[in-house]
Amino acid sequence: MTELFTVHTPPAAWARFIEHFQPSVRTERIATADALDRILAAPLTAPQDLPEFARATVDGYAVAAVDTYGATPGLPAFLALAGEVPMGKAAAFAIGPGEAALVHTGGMIPPGADAVVMIEDTQRVAADSIEVFRPVAEGQNVVQVGEDIRRGQPILTVGQRLRPQDLGGLMALGITEVTVAIPPVVGIISTGDEVAPPDQPVQPGQVRDINSYTLAGLAIRAGARAIRYGIVPDQRAALEAVAARAVQECDIVVFSAGSSVSYRDMTADVIDGLGRPGVLVHGVSVKPGKPTILAVCDGKAVFGLPGNPVSAMVIFDLFITPAIGLLLGAQKAPQPTVKARLARNLASDSGREDYVQVRLETRDGELWAVPVLGKSNLIYTLVNADGAIKIPLDANGLRAGEWVTVMIH
Amino acid sequence: MTELFTVHTPPAAWARFIEHFQPSVRTERIATADALDRILAAPLTAPQDLPEFARATVDGYAVAAVDTYGATPGLPAFLALAGEVPMGKAAAFAIGPGEAALVHTGGMIPPGADAVVMIEDTQRVAADSIEVFRPVAEGQNVVQVGEDIRRGQPILTVGQRLRPQDLGGLMALGITEVTVAIPPVVGIISTGDEVAPPDQPVQPGQVRDINSYTLAGLAIRAGARAIRYGIVPDQRAALEAVAARAVQECDIVVFSAGSSVSYRDMTADVIDGLGRPGVLVHGVSVKPGKPTILAVCDGKAVFGLPGNPVSAMVIFDLFITPAIGLLLGAQKAPQPTVKARLARNLASDSGREDYVQVRLETRDGELWAVPVLGKSNLIYTLVNADGAIKIPLDANGLRAGEWVTVMIH
Repeated sequence: MTELFTVHTPPAAWARFIEHFQPSVRTERIATADALDRILAAPLTAPQDLPEFARATVDGYAVAAVDTYGATPGLPAFLALAGEVPMGKAAAFAIGPGEAALVHTGGMIPPGADAVVMIEDTQRVAADSIEVFRPVAEGQNVVQVGEDIRRGQPILTVGQRLRPQDLGGLMALGITEVTVAIPPVVGIISTGDEVAPPDQPVQPGQVRDINSYTLAGLAIRAGARAIRYGIVPDQRAALEAVAARAVQECDIVVFSAGSSVSYRDMTADVIDGLGRPGVLVHGVSVKPGKPTILAVCDGKAVFGLPGNPVSAMVIFDLFITPAIGLLLGAQKAPQPTVKARLARNLASDSGREDYVQVRLETRDGELWAVPVLGKSNLIYTLVNADGAIKIPLDANGLRAGEWVTVMIH
Repeated sequence: MTELFTVHTPPAAWARFIEHFQPSVRTERIATADALDRILAAPLTAPQDLPEFARATVDGYAVAAVDTYGATPGLPAFLALAGEVPMGKAAAFAIGPGEAALVHTGGMIPPGADAVVMIEDTQRVAADSIEVFRPVAEGQNVVQVGEDIRRGQPILTVGQRLRPQDLGGLMALGITEVTVAIPPVVGIISTGDEVAPPDQPVQPGQVRDINSYTLAGLAIRAGARAIRYGIVPDQRAALEAVAARAVQECDIVVFSAGSSVSYRDMTADVIDGLGRPGVLVHGVSVKPGKPTILAVCDGKAVFGLPGNPVSAMVIFDLFITPAIGLLLGAQKAPQPTVKARLARNLASDSGREDYVQVRLETRDGELWAVPVLGKSNLIYTLVNADGAIKIPLDANGLRAGEWVTVMIH
């Protein structure tokens, strides 16, 4: 155990952790149609111009713009109708000077044309001729070859989460398969002799397992798969056996430990025995969440979280979501936040990051952040909160009425 | 067809639509463990107090607070040690005046005790007695019965999306099954003779299907299931056949129509024949997206979207996501937004809502919204955008440098 009970600031704890945790991103090829919200893992360039042919953006007549210059309702330009370009087909003919071709929105512009006159600005005067009442400029009402994207141009960014419109952008280029990150696997181990499964009657003195489910949900939201290893009694051999299996099967192992000092010590010992370098940080200057363990064991990330549900969630957001992001090679996702005014004074010790759960309330059209005052061992403190605010390391608190940034959860 | 080409404002279009679309929420019972991000569909109350017994929040000694009053390191209170309460067990004994019981964090407080002295503030002086150096107040270091939540109290809110912590809150009360909304089914029909499947080589004049995939992704993100009905040629009989099947199988049917006027008219006719009352709105004062159709056909919501990908996405966000919300009985989800400064002047006609795609850029530490100037028929306009800003109906534009709200997508 390299360090014991030296409390680290959150940034120092993270720096120490990533010194030893530099995973490579595992990738797979999947159908683009199934890639919604997956993380792109390989660079892409456009294999073709898009569009590959000049297209009309309106219904009308493809023309050489120069043939329409000076046209007015009183003095229209007369053009010969050379034919119609059917939708979904190549233009089978070119137009010459003084000629026009009927085209539809999205249809191909025939060779010789460089603009499209809107149908409303024309009149058919015979089967084979039209009048044009307004001039068009070169390129008007036309999407040029490569105007959407040019062949060879890079598209999308490695590490980005694929949005609906990104799938559309890939399909437009015929890219029907993509390389994405394989979701890392997060194993969750609940410990504590007082913890009972939620689907069975509890005995006096017992509490139901909460954290397995909350942490699994957080892992899934962060882009991982979650495996719950159930509840392990506070016996060292039992904990070691489950931990050894979890470290084999997962990329990240999370212990939701009993909260008493003896349990925490045993968890730290077990984690330290899982591989090298072992426990890196034991104690982080954050409230709630101080008795947190960060470890790397033979390349796997291992965390010991406080048993309190509020602490567990704060620490998950602080360290485990970013660790999942490393395994995904994901760009840091922008955390959804809102600005609100703080409804009451909040004290904090300098040298410690405080996370305070808040409820959002609209008062006279203004958004207020109302601290949820429940203890950090109450799950309904979290359930009743819309988000959390952070009191930074170097602050001594926040004043009522101040504008704060609420991280929505 | 009740109204034709009378352009409605977006709020008027929505009002007319929901006059005829008032679906009931279909529900199912599922395991709470599987309910992440599902919409709660039935009210819940706490079936028990949580916790059901008073619990210690620290490691220490359960005492009657009155026995510690005035205790100091120099003049400690002497208490007899009545025993230890093991984790996960009921306290098998009560403490009397002048007695204390060893308890662990999360453990049960024995009858007779009303506070816990932290272990650090005590000293074991014999096998059966301790010294207390600091007084505790009644209730100190104790979670009271029902302090987390009281039996009979309402928990969560019908229509809310279940977050990781909400699953924890349900599990804590032994609620291992919940009633949630069944995801509505959105059917997507692509039309247009020029549209080709993305996995096949395209011929000159053809473009690949983009909108089926983008719209399916948007539907999934809004909490629905998506069925793609493929690409239907612009023949009325073919379109009618697919439409009739989709309306049977889905709650919402979306036509991603060809963009030319003749295709739009045919789509409107086909939609109008699908059931009563039929087309309600044909044309919305929004840019891009004007040629939009809103219809209700025998209780199913049917939409005709412009073929342009940008228009299709704007209209999906404006009408279809809220329609999915009605079918889910979902509370309006807060749209993720950021404030940014507009990088250039934007003109707009009063009487029309404009949606402008923007890219976010940080300049000198300030966030700027840079309009992506691509045409609305370019998919990479969307791909290159981080979000959109809205120029309201009654505005004539926005000025460079102004603070705007960017809806992230």
